[in-house]
Amino acid sequence: MASPLDAVFKPRSVAVIGASRDRGSISGEVFHNLVSQGFPGPVYPVNRSAAVVQSVAAYASIRDVPGEVDLAVISVPRDGVLAAARECAQKGVRGLVVLTAGFAETGAKGRKIQDELTAVVRGAGMRMIGPNCLGLLNTDPAVNLNATFAPTWPPHGRVAFSSQSGAIGLTILDYARDLGIGISQFVSMGNKADTSGNDLLEYWEDDPNCGVILLYLESLGNPARFMQIASRVARKKPIAVVKSGRTEAGARAASSHTGALAGLDVAVDALLGQAGVLRTDTMEELFDVAMLLANQPVPEGSRVGILTNAGGPAIMASDACESRGLSIPPLTEKTVAELKAFLPPEASTKNPVDMIASATPASFERALKLLLLDPAVDSVIVLFVPPIMTEAADVAAAIRRGGAGAGKPVVTCFMGTHGIPAALSSLREGRFPSYAFPEAAALALARAVRYGQWLAAPPGRIPEIPGLDPAAARAAIRDGEDGRWLSAEDVRRVLSAYRIRTPKEDVVSDAASAAAAAARIGFPVAVKLASATITHKTEVGGVVLGLSNAEAVYEAFTAIRQNLARAGREKEMAGAVVQEMAPRGVETFVGVTQAPGYGPLLGFGTGGVAVEVWKDVAFRVAPITDTDASSMLDQIRGAKLLDGFRGGPRADRAALVETLLSVSRMVQDLPEIAEMDINPLVALEPGRGVIAVDARIRVRGQEKP
Amino acid sequence: MASPLDAVFKPRSVAVIGASRDRGSISGEVFHNLVSQGFPGPVYPVNRSAAVVQSVAAYASIRDVPGEVDLAVISVPRDGVLAAARECAQKGVRGLVVLTAGFAETGAKGRKIQDELTAVVRGAGMRMIGPNCLGLLNTDPAVNLNATFAPTWPPHGRVAFSSQSGAIGLTILDYARDLGIGISQFVSMGNKADTSGNDLLEYWEDDPNCGVILLYLESLGNPARFMQIASRVARKKPIAVVKSGRTEAGARAASSHTGALAGLDVAVDALLGQAGVLRTDTMEELFDVAMLLANQPVPEGSRVGILTNAGGPAIMASDACESRGLSIPPLTEKTVAELKAFLPPEASTKNPVDMIASATPASFERALKLLLLDPAVDSVIVLFVPPIMTEAADVAAAIRRGGAGAGKPVVTCFMGTHGIPAALSSLREGRFPSYAFPEAAALALARAVRYGQWLAAPPGRIPEIPGLDPAAARAAIRDGEDGRWLSAEDVRRVLSAYRIRTPKEDVVSDAASAAAAAARIGFPVAVKLASATITHKTEVGGVVLGLSNAEAVYEAFTAIRQNLARAGREKEMAGAVVQEMAPRGVETFVGVTQAPGYGPLLGFGTGGVAVEVWKDVAFRVAPITDTDASSMLDQIRGAKLLDGFRGGPRADRAALVETLLSVSRMVQDLPEIAEMDINPLVALEPGRGVIAVDARIRVRGQEKP
Repeated sequence: MASPLDAVFKPRSVAVIGASRDRGSISGEVFHNLVSQGFPGPVYPVNRSAAVVQSVAAYASIRDVPGEVDLAVISVPRDGVLAAARECAQKGVRGLVVLTAGFAETGAKGRKIQDELTAVVRGAGMRMIGPNCLGLLNTDPAVNLNATFAPTWPPHGRVAFSSQSGAIGLTILDYARDLGIGISQFVSMGNKADTSGNDLLEYWEDDPNCGVILLYLESLGNPARFMQIASRVARKKPIAVVKSGRTEAGARAASSHTGALAGLDVAVDALLGQAGVLRTDTMEELFDVAMLLANQPVPEGSRVGILTNAGGPAIMASDACESRGLSIPPLTEKTVAELKAFLPPEASTKNPVDMIASATPASFERALKLLLLDPAVDSVIVLFVPPIMTEAADVAAAIRRGGAGAGKPVVTCFMGTHGIPAALSSLREGRFPSYAFPEAAALALARAVRYGQWLAAPPGRIPEIPGLDPAAARAAIRDGEDGRWLSAEDVRRVLSAYRIRTPKEDVVSDAASAAAAAARIGFPVAVKLASATITHKTEVGGVVLGLSNAEAVYEAFTAIRQNLARAGREKEMAGAVVQEMAPRGVETFVGVTQAPGYGPLLGFGTGGVAVEVWKDVAFRVAPITDTDASSMLDQIRGAKLLDGFRGGPRADRAALVETLLSVSRMVQDLPEIAEMDINPLVALEPGRGVIAVDARIRVRGQEKP
Repeated sequence: MASPLDAVFKPRSVAVIGASRDRGSISGEVFHNLVSQGFPGPVYPVNRSAAVVQSVAAYASIRDVPGEVDLAVISVPRDGVLAAARECAQKGVRGLVVLTAGFAETGAKGRKIQDELTAVVRGAGMRMIGPNCLGLLNTDPAVNLNATFAPTWPPHGRVAFSSQSGAIGLTILDYARDLGIGISQFVSMGNKADTSGNDLLEYWEDDPNCGVILLYLESLGNPARFMQIASRVARKKPIAVVKSGRTEAGARAASSHTGALAGLDVAVDALLGQAGVLRTDTMEELFDVAMLLANQPVPEGSRVGILTNAGGPAIMASDACESRGLSIPPLTEKTVAELKAFLPPEASTKNPVDMIASATPASFERALKLLLLDPAVDSVIVLFVPPIMTEAADVAAAIRRGGAGAGKPVVTCFMGTHGIPAALSSLREGRFPSYAFPEAAALALARAVRYGQWLAAPPGRIPEIPGLDPAAARAAIRDGEDGRWLSAEDVRRVLSAYRIRTPKEDVVSDAASAAAAAARIGFPVAVKLASATITHKTEVGGVVLGLSNAEAVYEAFTAIRQNLARAGREKEMAGAVVQEMAPRGVETFVGVTQAPGYGPLLGFGTGGVAVEVWKDVAFRVAPITDTDASSMLDQIRGAKLLDGFRGGPRADRAALVETLLSVSRMVQDLPEIAEMDINPLVALEPGRGVIAVDARIRVRGQEKP
């Protein structure tokens, strides 16, 4: 066997330890399912007290089994699991599936037993699924393995599915069977004590029977490794994920702008997007996109042709396409002429092509072929509403003929149900996905288009940036206190070490030296409160801008002090910063927050208060590539502000990209950085760089690792 | 009969004109369906050439039918329809359903025949459904009317449904039957030549058998009347709508900001929202919300309790609730204590309440009762994943007992399908809606919550605003050319007539008079290009702000002239406006556009370029009420900018509301106004009013009525 996991997925023999004589119990059902599904090798029941289990001679211990055992399914009370695993090790069993619950999910004691179990498994070179899982199945007709206690047997197909929740897994098996979605292998991962989702990705990467990988996740054990593996596997076959637990995000206390903007879920979104993994909102949508990707080519573009025999559904499909970023382009003149040649005059030969209710199966076939040949079309949605005279099954057969071998995806929607089931199973045999409503077809197609775009984009690189001085930055950080915001001076030192320009400035402690500093720096200047505790300076009247002479500077310092005194916060004033006024430019925002477990998360957006009001920020998990950085600029809704919108200034995009890459490098070099906001990062005219006008950096506290 | 439409929906006798002997033809199927569904009165086949139709003695003409005929279903070739209708009139028939196609939907000739048909119908005091429709049905067991050519007979229930698309209607009947959704009446409206959606709303308003009204619309014939009727009916029973054809919006050319922001679909959204009509994105969601509203009380708040026997689905439900604006609050201590008293220690008694897989039907019943009694909870989602030991049917029965009579809605989701169907039909009998996935349950609940909020909100009023001078405004508009933008002076006159303050200003034609005007007005001032053709003034270097002395004003005028000269557009300069600089305030945006058929559409949003970049604008169809106006302020994402965000100025909300009401009055008084933007409308500190710093008004052209 090529992979140790083969012992689990393709065993030649199976033992069920704890196999019960009672149907209706978990271990009784597993044994029954293994035997009745027609597993080709022997299934050995192991039962301490019964000589016969469900008409099969049983063994008191796995060690008594005469032949070799590749896979043991363990379903004994928790306190007997360790002993059973040790006996399996002695017997030379190579794979375990532990259904028994009561391990890490129940607390410290259970976790300790689970750790011992993992040690036994790894010590013996075995692989294990679970514990606390539903089991697994392999529908390969040569294997026919149903090692679950659920009776469901989905059709054989190319979709591999792993679920972190047993309940969801059970549901999904039923769902797949009802929709006729072909499954290759299914695993309920349980507590993932040995085999993780990452292991499964790697196992399925090279499985020729697997065309699409689906994951239901509640947590990502090792996000960095997931990113590395998934982005490699996604180049070979699509991966689609439902990651639930979005509400964790809301629970996170966050003290910086970036932190408040980026819940943990944003990190998940960023990570999956960077890795080319499709994320869907619901399980339904997960299977909808899987049906398409398992059976049809990946679309090469976003232009959709719509073919229908009724107007209403075509309107719904058009709306759904456009709202998901797909276009419904005009057809080429040649296609229109050829459609007109055989369709009745009342038909519409624009896109959508509405052949009206009199459309025959032959017209579906012919029109579909023409649409697929049209160079203006990347994929086709076929909609069919059964009128009284046309048999759905004949139309399905026509679609199979018309859509075969086009190299472009075809999806269908047969509305209404009378006479439909036979048509749908015919479509399934021809590998054409069919959806109950036009919107679902459009959404699945939109996701497939996004995957195609990810595949087509050149993979980015992480360029070396010359002249950085991590040692200087680290020294500046060391000067700060753990868990506190760095002083303005230390922030300047860190940014300078990463070649991020800051305005000329001086820290001063009284009005007279403020005026003197301004004269040295050159007018106009700004005077800003210096304080270790007050972070939103404008709110306390701590910022005065555009001062053009020494007297105004003197007065500004005095006014800031008075503002604080009025608020009773004079003691929090550590002088002021006299700062060069940045030239006119585009205000942007660059921030970093730590997404626990995911590492540093970089944000780029429109600057000033806009970042908080409109939350127009693109996020990526660090380290980012050059293409990641430019795509962040394009992704924000305010992207047009970078290019001289309505007479406004144009931004130095290259310098923004470089700054993002520097910040990415910085947070890799200096994991001590817990949070950072540069707001505004003023982008000057192209070629003139950027200036970090205001920035804050918080260093990780000892008590907040 | 109370309503003339009773002849259509509750006839005592039916004739089918054109009834065919052939099953498989439209008229043959309709006759068959009427007879075989068990319609209690006589169904008379009328056939010019056959003496017997499907074993029933036929009549050559409707005039030969011996008894009275309430309803005639006409299914003859188009050119025979008028004659048939005239014979019906002579016979004293009171309702027509015209299935025949080939009328207005096919062009001018068809429209002419349709108009004649309508004239015949109205002249005789008949009511008509169609032409070009699928028919209608009434599931009331006392009526049992299936006057469609579809074989589907949905279960009897409280949902009335009307569809503008026959194809969609057919599909939906199948869908309702498969899901077991009870339908009271169904109508395919066809070309709506006599009976419109508005008529149906009024008919169903007083129908005690109808609890929920669903509409599938592709167009709104008379939006103003729809608004009036729907907002009255929605106070009595919920109305939910799918309105397709969103893409029309994209096709509209739009020359103003407001126009570009507000596609026609925005008008539909605004109209439906103001009328309290729920709009769903898909037909699935339409029926999902109908299932809830037809069977359960309207939730009084947005706080959801979740009860489950498995963790995964509860996480999915929580995510879906929170992302739709519902909350999952902590339970009261009393509830927690009572749950702890009987649930195992591994269960979670927080919200969601996870009773784990061992939960019995009795624990579902008891826990559901406790959640419903908890004052912190407005509704409950019950999730059930069938473990091996628990019968779904027993849990369904337990939910029926636990959820009965609580006065709070309970929705359920039974995941997986084995053993489920019996449970679901049991739930249906108990009127508890059940969804295939937790997300659908949460979304339906969120929509019902929104409806509850609309019901609870006090209905607004349209206050009289004293001191307006429509005559002065009309005079100013008359001065403008049709279809053109008004001059700055005329814009001022219109705004002043509606008591909207504008800055002090003077129009000047040279630099010297600019300086003199500034001295009169008082510094600081702005100098702005005056031009009838250039609307985006900043783009051409046509605006200079904050000038504090006469010399600077002189230079600014010169600079603007030079900027235009450089662009070769000097001829477009009609002098400049010297304008008082508005005091510091919050920049907002107020705009008007005409949504064809919907009337004037009012927008309020954040001002400056933000309006174009973030499109943060709330829309309402005029006329608006006082509560509409305040809700527009709260609805925009930038609402926090109105209340002194991050040390920024606070806005005079009362003055903003007053301005919106004035503008609403203005566009009612002056339908000539095609478009208007006030941007920025600077809102000063509370009590100090607003200033329309820049505004544009376009008057309707003769050729664009």
